[in-house]
Amino acid sequence: MTEPGMTRGADAVLAALSFDADGLVAAVAQQHDSGEVLMLAWMNREAVRETLTTGRVCYWSRSRQALWRKGESSGHVQRLVELRVDCDGDAVLLRVDQTGAACHTGQRSCFFRAARGGALVTIAAPIA
Amino acid sequence: MTEPGMTRGADAVLAALSFDADGLVAAVAQQHDSGEVLMLAWMNREAVRETLTTGRVCYWSRSRQALWRKGESSGHVQRLVELRVDCDGDAVLLRVDQTGAACHTGQRSCFFRAARGGALVTIAAPIA
Repeated sequence: MTEPGMTRGADAVLAALSFDADGLVAAVAQQHDSGEVLMLAWMNREAVRETLTTGRVCYWSRSRQALWRKGESSGHVQRLVELRVDCDGDAVLLRVDQTGAACHTGQRSCFFRAARGGALVTIAAPIA
Repeated sequence: MTEPGMTRGADAVLAALSFDADGLVAAVAQQHDSGEVLMLAWMNREAVRETLTTGRVCYWSRSRQALWRKGESSGHVQRLVELRVDCDGDAVLLRVDQTGAACHTGQRSCFFRAARGGALVTIAAPIA
């Protein structure tokens, strides 16, 4: 069910966004309570609207050129806690509650490698 | 001064990155201790190398088409604490120590507006 307030919220957010030549904005997903940055993906207007109206995060897959309902096949859904918009409207911050692994590799976060000394090292173990 | 280890670190990171058609990767800056997501910007190869070798964050400005040494004019520099690379190498997470405001509006974070009910509201006051 769509709350009237959420629909109006989508309109206000969409009006503040500046979509690029491909019709996309960058979307950073962050676990709302721990602050962990989980992934970076992309959203078009429809993905933003669906995310705000359903409360489940939906991206735009650039490789598949299709809406990407996060967790639809894996079960690793992202429940939207809050959507924030940056100063120039070309990026959004999705504060989410992530079920399981955000990354297709089974890692909690896609950012599981860090530059340490002279190398790039894996700093976390897969959770799934 | 450049530490030999940091130069080697840049090579390892650059080898893991997949730059887009414009030669860029997305870069998310996060305050290392609070977890606050500060901004999203872009880096080319030279910006990544300079950031890793100097320890001060340098982006690529798409509007000015030039290296953007964050804080060079404002003093609001970002000291690099750790650079992480995502699973497919097209985004980096910069864990930084931000001096002052990350946003040109004087806000600590560029993500200072949130969808609340039917509106997009400002959720923080400028700090500078």
